[in-house]
Amino acid sequence: MKNRLIECVPNYSEGRRPEVIEAVVEPFRRRPGCILLDYRADQDHNRLVVSLAGQPEPIQAGLIESALAALEHIDLEKHRGGHPRIGAVDVIPFIPLQNINMDECVRIAREFGNRFHKETGVPVYFYEEAALRAERRNLEVIRKGQFEVLKTEIGLPERHPDVGEPRVHPSAGATVIGARKFLIAFNVNLGTSDLKVAREIARAVRSSSGGLCHVKGIGLALADRGLTQVSMNIVDYEKNALYRVVEMIRMEARRWGVRIVETEVYGMVPAAALLDSAAYYLQFAGFERKQVIELALLDMLGKEERKEQESGHEDTETPRDTIFVS
Amino acid sequence: MKNRLIECVPNYSEGRRPEVIEAVVEPFRRRPGCILLDYRADQDHNRLVVSLAGQPEPIQAGLIESALAALEHIDLEKHRGGHPRIGAVDVIPFIPLQNINMDECVRIAREFGNRFHKETGVPVYFYEEAALRAERRNLEVIRKGQFEVLKTEIGLPERHPDVGEPRVHPSAGATVIGARKFLIAFNVNLGTSDLKVAREIARAVRSSSGGLCHVKGIGLALADRGLTQVSMNIVDYEKNALYRVVEMIRMEARRWGVRIVETEVYGMVPAAALLDSAAYYLQFAGFERKQVIELALLDMLGKEERKEQESGHEDTETPRDTIFVS
Repeated sequence: MKNRLIECVPNYSEGRRPEVIEAVVEPFRRRPGCILLDYRADQDHNRLVVSLAGQPEPIQAGLIESALAALEHIDLEKHRGGHPRIGAVDVIPFIPLQNINMDECVRIAREFGNRFHKETGVPVYFYEEAALRAERRNLEVIRKGQFEVLKTEIGLPERHPDVGEPRVHPSAGATVIGARKFLIAFNVNLGTSDLKVAREIARAVRSSSGGLCHVKGIGLALADRGLTQVSMNIVDYEKNALYRVVEMIRMEARRWGVRIVETEVYGMVPAAALLDSAAYYLQFAGFERKQVIELALLDMLGKEERKEQESGHEDTETPRDTIFVS
Repeated sequence: MKNRLIECVPNYSEGRRPEVIEAVVEPFRRRPGCILLDYRADQDHNRLVVSLAGQPEPIQAGLIESALAALEHIDLEKHRGGHPRIGAVDVIPFIPLQNINMDECVRIAREFGNRFHKETGVPVYFYEEAALRAERRNLEVIRKGQFEVLKTEIGLPERHPDVGEPRVHPSAGATVIGARKFLIAFNVNLGTSDLKVAREIARAVRSSSGGLCHVKGIGLALADRGLTQVSMNIVDYEKNALYRVVEMIRMEARRWGVRIVETEVYGMVPAAALLDSAAYYLQFAGFERKQVIELALLDMLGKEERKEQESGHEDTETPRDTIFVS
């Protein structure tokens, strides 16, 4: 855990067999510099989503080991599940977290894509910020028709992989690797069973129909609870703050006499996304991230470890944090 | 930076001479396990407030070294400033932060008080949770009349110190040491120059006049900005959440046709205090602290370091964090 931190969220096409899930996750345990934050297996989707944070190098080493385990156990010819996929290791996004920018994550993704192909034989596509062809920024363009269609279409020039020969790996398909911003999965539950209301609100708030630029969303029924849901991905929480999304939905819902019953953050969220909203509602003036004691500690820990590494050298980085309040 | 974390906020009677401030702060720099979060010197108060976080042992070692520097440079016979004080090292509170409870902080405060007296010769009073006499829970009872009055009254039985002989240190006075919860300094600025409104609202919100149990507050004029301020200490943010304080002030202010212009967190704040308010306004259901990526990282870092210390032993603490979502 030194100073450069990324997140990485590999997705695997296995959400049912516990022994396979464990074999895929195991390489991320007890690996210094790589922290296994969470992993979630979805049986309907037959898919595993792993959340990692840490330094780029140990995360990449873990990914290779984990991919080899996935290749050993997963055969896409036999795989069935509700979620679109083209590979046993389906998607690997690298996400900047601390002291690392998007350009560096793009470089990491591309270098890793080449290494991944070399060590597994699986062809690789680059997506989002790491895309080499404009249309491949969009994951769904790459995954069109899934493994079953890609098997034959991979020979077409527009479907050639970015790394490797134009043929899928017989059991592991192909893998999509890229760099993107941190994505927040955010649901707003509405006090109505009328699906039309949830769909209208989703339409009002999402970018594809003219809403907020960095929000994707659909309206869903939560039939067993008699509620409906606006289910969203906030793909840039710095530009589309959570409070703005919530207040926009609240405003639209008023038109139908509907209230927000509750909201849900699914999975991880960066502290900054919550601080932004706290600062908005509480009307903070001049608030700084380093005033949050845990965030200051986390920042300082990186510095302290660097100091230990540089022991013997003069420490020229004397903190300059005196504030004279008159 | 292992697993047991405290905060410590020593206050010194020097806010003007940069070389003295630096001599007092220096023992907290480059000390493994002790992190200097912040220090603020106030020239009017002629007072220095240092914020430390880390493990109890290195923080205490730093405090002794820092106190000896303060004794060398600060003479209360010559000290003038706007803030009440009885000592060159005036107050030292220990605050539980992570994997440590209030009882342990009380024990640390009392043991440290004895060590502090032994190494500096300065008499010690215990306050708040560490108080040995009920009335000394209140810091202002101990500091009554300040150094100038305590010099003579320390001989009275009710003013005898808890550690040491009943006479002040000739230049360094006496020191108050204790344990308390994390205190949030929080100001709400009102869109009115009418001081009466700020005072009425402070009265409505603070415990001493029947308001929220864990809020202290006064009304102040911000004359140069044409505003007034409700200036508060939230002494238990878990019981009196920030959002409840803000909304209560908003509600009271409405009576006078006054708006909240902005609010200010002065100094440090625990993440939980802001997450609580974000969760309230955004209507989070079932949100957990470990969903915040930085907080999960901080927790994992402690575990990782423990694992390194235990290397060679079998790791029995296998994470059990798979969640099957059907």
